[in-house]
Amino acid sequence: MYATLMHAPGDVRYERVDDPKILKPTDAIIELSATCICGSDLWPYRGAQPFEEPMHMGHEYCGKVIEVGSEVRTIRPGQFVVGSFVISDNTCPHCQFGYPSSCEQREFMSGAQAPYARVPLADGTLVATEEMPTDEQIPYMLASSDVLGTGYYAAEAAGVTNGSTAVVVGDGAVGLMAVLSAKMRGAERIIAMSRHESRQKLAREYGATDIVASRGEEGIAEVMDLTNGVGADAVLECVGLQQSMDQALGVCRPGGAVGFVGVPHEVTFTGEGLFFAQKRLFGGPAPVRRYLPDLMQRVLEGEIKPGKVFDLELPIAEVADGYRAMDERRAIKTLLRV
Amino acid sequence: MYATLMHAPGDVRYERVDDPKILKPTDAIIELSATCICGSDLWPYRGAQPFEEPMHMGHEYCGKVIEVGSEVRTIRPGQFVVGSFVISDNTCPHCQFGYPSSCEQREFMSGAQAPYARVPLADGTLVATEEMPTDEQIPYMLASSDVLGTGYYAAEAAGVTNGSTAVVVGDGAVGLMAVLSAKMRGAERIIAMSRHESRQKLAREYGATDIVASRGEEGIAEVMDLTNGVGADAVLECVGLQQSMDQALGVCRPGGAVGFVGVPHEVTFTGEGLFFAQKRLFGGPAPVRRYLPDLMQRVLEGEIKPGKVFDLELPIAEVADGYRAMDERRAIKTLLRV
Repeated sequence: MYATLMHAPGDVRYERVDDPKILKPTDAIIELSATCICGSDLWPYRGAQPFEEPMHMGHEYCGKVIEVGSEVRTIRPGQFVVGSFVISDNTCPHCQFGYPSSCEQREFMSGAQAPYARVPLADGTLVATEEMPTDEQIPYMLASSDVLGTGYYAAEAAGVTNGSTAVVVGDGAVGLMAVLSAKMRGAERIIAMSRHESRQKLAREYGATDIVASRGEEGIAEVMDLTNGVGADAVLECVGLQQSMDQALGVCRPGGAVGFVGVPHEVTFTGEGLFFAQKRLFGGPAPVRRYLPDLMQRVLEGEIKPGKVFDLELPIAEVADGYRAMDERRAIKTLLRV
Repeated sequence: MYATLMHAPGDVRYERVDDPKILKPTDAIIELSATCICGSDLWPYRGAQPFEEPMHMGHEYCGKVIEVGSEVRTIRPGQFVVGSFVISDNTCPHCQFGYPSSCEQREFMSGAQAPYARVPLADGTLVATEEMPTDEQIPYMLASSDVLGTGYYAAEAAGVTNGSTAVVVGDGAVGLMAVLSAKMRGAERIIAMSRHESRQKLAREYGATDIVASRGEEGIAEVMDLTNGVGADAVLECVGLQQSMDQALGVCRPGGAVGFVGVPHEVTFTGEGLFFAQKRLFGGPAPVRRYLPDLMQRVLEGEIKPGKVFDLELPIAEVADGYRAMDERRAIKTLLRV
């Protein structure tokens, strides 16, 4: 088959590779219904994260099971499945505690920007539906695999609950899903920090009640004004840079929480700063596997439509164009049809 | 009157000062029943924290109100009161949200290692009892003012709840109170990390089920062994150094929490480290004012006896000896009789 490989920063190719095979008896092979490019794929694309070349790209996926290993018990060929971007056994103490993204057997999914992919620990990682979703629902299911689940985790880690005042830092796809997730968890007020008009509009559609376009100290001051000088109960940090983290801490009230889901790049904290600010901090790779049954159900029932973040759709052979469009901020997120 | 001043690192004197006076109409003057030396007083004493000389020492206090300002409404002369080491109005949004230690009018108490002290924002800061406590209860009441409340906050910030497995890092007075607090909050297992036999004994009295004497990687490995390789749900960091913080994070399970109450000195975190470890972090000056009514009630009912951390008792005129004893680790905490 063909698959997506990154050979160097800026150099993404759709090229001939070996077909994926069952390597361990707990693996499954799936035929993808669709796949996509993640904001985190842009870190190596932009040279901001070293990698071993060539790297198989893609960790968001949904599709039909076509083969399972001899020890797979619950997942069966023919089922439609969604899996997390983190492989997990769903049985270890960390999984049972609610953190499959820190599973004792944790692996990060790769190679999913392709028509077929191998999923390790299939029973633990994959969640099957009873029926095939509709074509309209496929992008929503795909979103559950990472971007929606990650936005949801930002809201959970920040402690968003009924009546919360929430601030979302970052208007990429995860930030927009974080807005939707804050809404799903009952936030009364959702302040989206966004400078791009099209993204502001989408943020409002997903539930943002206020938009703050300024950044840095000025942005912090605007949020403080909007919250009567108090700050937000919950701040959802969806970028991963020092500037965005400082902004997140700056708009959080004492006793409030910052949930951070943008993979941090050269972000540091001082103990003294966190101590006297008295703000909670919790982040990490999202425990998507825990959320999947609920998120997939909400999609199937039509309650949420998390697919609007895909504002560019390309055949997978044009994947390199998809990276370029996201790198140049012409697209929020690229859906790849296989 | 005489009071305790620090003139330079290692140089503490009990010397003549002006009597405290009402400076603002919201102040009260109290006659202290007892006072004490805090572990945090050792930072400047050891030259690890610059300060303006001479510095009035002491922030833990309880005693009888002898005078109030014209705007004090609820506190009256003659009452026995306990106050937090953080002055707060108890009405601002941060106080109402449960964080009086981040009050909009926050001040840190000082000058309480003396027979009399001025307490600003008396209505917000002080909690009165109906009757005078017994002599036996005075040290327990005094402990509520900071060391017990701070240990309690470590347990709350670390999310200790019924059935938790908790680890306490640090066997100073706060660490020992953290053990007691973890017990009060229902921890099933409490692992105290302590190298000193007398402190281990006290930790066991207060509820520790296991003692780990090793530190660093070895200490982490021992805790991991004790928890079947999982780590603790809740870690109470009661020191404030990089080594103790690394140890705290090292023994915490993914999805667990580190509550840190030792004022951090040159402690740093990386965003990436916290992200991939997936551990919660929350600390700060303890919101003691919120806990006081409950803690004082438990003392009055005889449920808790948090005074055992005072293993040295001196007349206040000998305060310099008290500092020396704590600095040389001959005493856990010094009670000063006024």
